[in-house]
Amino acid sequence: MPLTALKTAVLEANLATVSHGLVKATFGNASGIDRASGRIAIKPSGVPYDRMTPDHMVITDLDGVPLDNRLRPSSDLDTHVVLYREFPQIGAIIHTHSTYATIMAQARRPVPPLGTTHADYFHGTIPVTRDLTSEEINTRYVAATGEVIAETVGDGDPLEIPAVLVAGHGPFVWGRDPQEAVLNAVILEEVAKMAWHGAVIDPQPPVISQTLLDRHYLRKHGANATYGQ
Amino acid sequence: MPLTALKTAVLEANLATVSHGLVKATFGNASGIDRASGRIAIKPSGVPYDRMTPDHMVITDLDGVPLDNRLRPSSDLDTHVVLYREFPQIGAIIHTHSTYATIMAQARRPVPPLGTTHADYFHGTIPVTRDLTSEEINTRYVAATGEVIAETVGDGDPLEIPAVLVAGHGPFVWGRDPQEAVLNAVILEEVAKMAWHGAVIDPQPPVISQTLLDRHYLRKHGANATYGQ
Amino acid sequence: MPLTALKTAVLEANLATVSHGLVKATFGNASGIDRASGRIAIKPSGVPYDRMTPDHMVITDLDGVPLDNRLRPSSDLDTHVVLYREFPQIGAIIHTHSTYATIMAQARRPVPPLGTTHADYFHGTIPVTRDLTSEEINTRYVAATGEVIAETVGDGDPLEIPAVLVAGHGPFVWGRDPQEAVLNAVILEEVAKMAWHGAVIDPQPPVISQTLLDRHYLRKHGANATYGQ
Amino acid sequence: MPLTALKTAVLEANLATVSHGLVKATFGNASGIDRASGRIAIKPSGVPYDRMTPDHMVITDLDGVPLDNRLRPSSDLDTHVVLYREFPQIGAIIHTHSTYATIMAQARRPVPPLGTTHADYFHGTIPVTRDLTSEEINTRYVAATGEVIAETVGDGDPLEIPAVLVAGHGPFVWGRDPQEAVLNAVILEEVAKMAWHGAVIDPQPPVISQTLLDRHYLRKHGANATYGQ
Repeated sequence: MPLTALKTAVLEANLATVSHGLVKATFGNASGIDRASGRIAIKPSGVPYDRMTPDHMVITDLDGVPLDNRLRPSSDLDTHVVLYREFPQIGAIIHTHSTYATIMAQARRPVPPLGTTHADYFHGTIPVTRDLTSEEINTRYVAATGEVIAETVGDGDPLEIPAVLVAGHGPFVWGRDPQEAVLNAVILEEVAKMAWHGAVIDPQPPVISQTLLDRHYLRKHGANATYGQ
Repeated sequence: MPLTALKTAVLEANLATVSHGLVKATFGNASGIDRASGRIAIKPSGVPYDRMTPDHMVITDLDGVPLDNRLRPSSDLDTHVVLYREFPQIGAIIHTHSTYATIMAQARRPVPPLGTTHADYFHGTIPVTRDLTSEEINTRYVAATGEVIAETVGDGDPLEIPAVLVAGHGPFVWGRDPQEAVLNAVILEEVAKMAWHGAVIDPQPPVISQTLLDRHYLRKHGANATYGQ
Repeated sequence: MPLTALKTAVLEANLATVSHGLVKATFGNASGIDRASGRIAIKPSGVPYDRMTPDHMVITDLDGVPLDNRLRPSSDLDTHVVLYREFPQIGAIIHTHSTYATIMAQARRPVPPLGTTHADYFHGTIPVTRDLTSEEINTRYVAATGEVIAETVGDGDPLEIPAVLVAGHGPFVWGRDPQEAVLNAVILEEVAKMAWHGAVIDPQPPVISQTLLDRHYLRKHGANATYGQ
Repeated sequence: MPLTALKTAVLEANLATVSHGLVKATFGNASGIDRASGRIAIKPSGVPYDRMTPDHMVITDLDGVPLDNRLRPSSDLDTHVVLYREFPQIGAIIHTHSTYATIMAQARRPVPPLGTTHADYFHGTIPVTRDLTSEEINTRYVAATGEVIAETVGDGDPLEIPAVLVAGHGPFVWGRDPQEAVLNAVILEEVAKMAWHGAVIDPQPPVISQTLLDRHYLRKHGANATYGQ
């Protein structure tokens, strides 16, 4: 993918997080990667969304070193870098403080598969990380955030459950490309909202069966997907 | 009804589910039927709402067989087909994952008639289906969803309570025509929202009397309706 | 007030209930009265809001008899007529099914003065009516709704607490003129929303002192009001 | 800062409280101060937001005495005056009745640091004042509101936790300038919303560690801030 296309796609993903109501103030950041050239494009730090252009996106190498020095990258860059290294399957990452996903992250509540809305996008429970230690926070906070996400995903396929809630912080979501990552972030917020509401009226809300979870997830994903045109 | 009118009405119903906030991403689908010609018009699968035109609506016969092969129909087509066969009174069907109706469907909570908002559109409790069995899910999931809705309605008149919540999934709503189905879907979401809020502050929220339920429902429906111009 | 001014003010109040998010579908109705001529203007029944003009407002006398027969008045007309007769101080009435006020009406929960937002507009607890009897519903439902509101207000000044929640139904709100009634309906929904949220986290939410209630209410109302220009 | 710039900045802050959904009706007011000239600019009382111009902002001296007599200042002026005197570090004040911050103020619930959203703007728990006494309300209500806020902040730096919830009333928020005060008011509402939701599903929601609180707060504030361009 040419860098200009990557920058445009990443800009659009950043703007989409705002138009979908997932981001307030300058919280949140989206990035994308071109695996062929090893280039990452990420939102700059603290630039208002309504003034961003594709050229504001900061380009870095796979170690997160900016390739020019016009603008500083998002302060969460190192988390993205770790995730791109740990999850070679993914092509884009979105971080938001979207309200209900953050409420669940603050409450250390995983989001279980309560219905088919969830199953269409997430093939199981969306987990919460452990808390970072004081040492991790003090010495290498941003990278350690990526590492604790990778630790939480473990041996699983990160594209099967493309989101993790960072304890006391908020969601990191990914996908094969920026558009898919945006969609996953939108659905995550919706299923987190429904999970919170479910927990309020039932301390043990029923999850759907593995059969139904597979039926819906595999309809949209994998070799036998039948959804769409 | 000419097919072009049916396709336009079905398109408008699909767009209305989005403008009323009942649908996110490509969740949801609306269909209509012309009983005279035995033709069903339904949303295509996975086409973005902002690009849909009347001609994108897929026309099928009463068995759900598409009459041309330009676009695939909604993956929920077979549910619609079963409902049109089981409920000869109805002329349109809408499926959404609207937030509060889905929260209640996931919690297996019927929506009782707590007030006159409910009674103006639904002549009693909006029920939840049983869970589908693994065999139903594995062998004929989409049609079985229609069958379990019909099983839940039983001997009742489907127009008296024009909605069912499918357990772990979301609402199916219907009406005599696409416009009425949209209105029923909007009101269902509102009464589900109020029912959830009522359940939070009172484990046994009071339902209205049969007398008040009849008074409001029959004001708007049936031979003695007095509402409107 | 000339009839044309009354009809315009009543139309604007009806439209304001929609733009403020208090009304969905065709729920809700606003009316106004010109005490000098004894004329009531009220929303017609079942006319879509986006097509209403001032001339759609139905003019009736003090007994609710329409003075022409172009359009049927709101089906809630008789409630308005009773309230104008019982409360000579008021000049306009608004009925909505606004979400949180209706949730409280369905739960038979009065809205207590939990803060100064409430005190700025309502000089005490907003009450809920008793349930209507089956006989009242069957024989004279709409007028009886007005009577049970008047019974609930009792000897109080209806302008001091310009709203009542009708059990299992929703709010009726009033004011000296249509604009004031709209404002009272907007604030009622907001204080009902805050009261519901307060009740969820505290079974006995603290009410403000009579001193603070008086301080805020009397700042905006009565002979010693100091608010505004 | 010239007075015209101050008036424009204060107008924009007032309008921002509306566009961010923090203010309904004419609740709420924003002010700013030019420390060099000792001039305060504040919203006028009871003027509709959609008609306000910079010249509607009322200019007063440090004792709250208006320097002309065209429009009355906000009825909360004396609270602002006390806060400007007590907190020499601040340059702007915003008062709203934003929904969730007010719900917490009514419930006398401080907003604890449950996550990094909070930590990015508030360096600790956002406190609630004690109730004012009847004597304070009756004799010097508006100034006493400022005094009880100052009493609640105590020896702390008001810019470290730039908001207090006034019991039974709502939030007062401040910043070094009107733009920063708006941002603090927006984030306060969001963290209050998340705190309410957290309290519903967990009576003792976990707070983040002092290490994480410091890490996030100090990233954006103080001599070693690294955020932004």
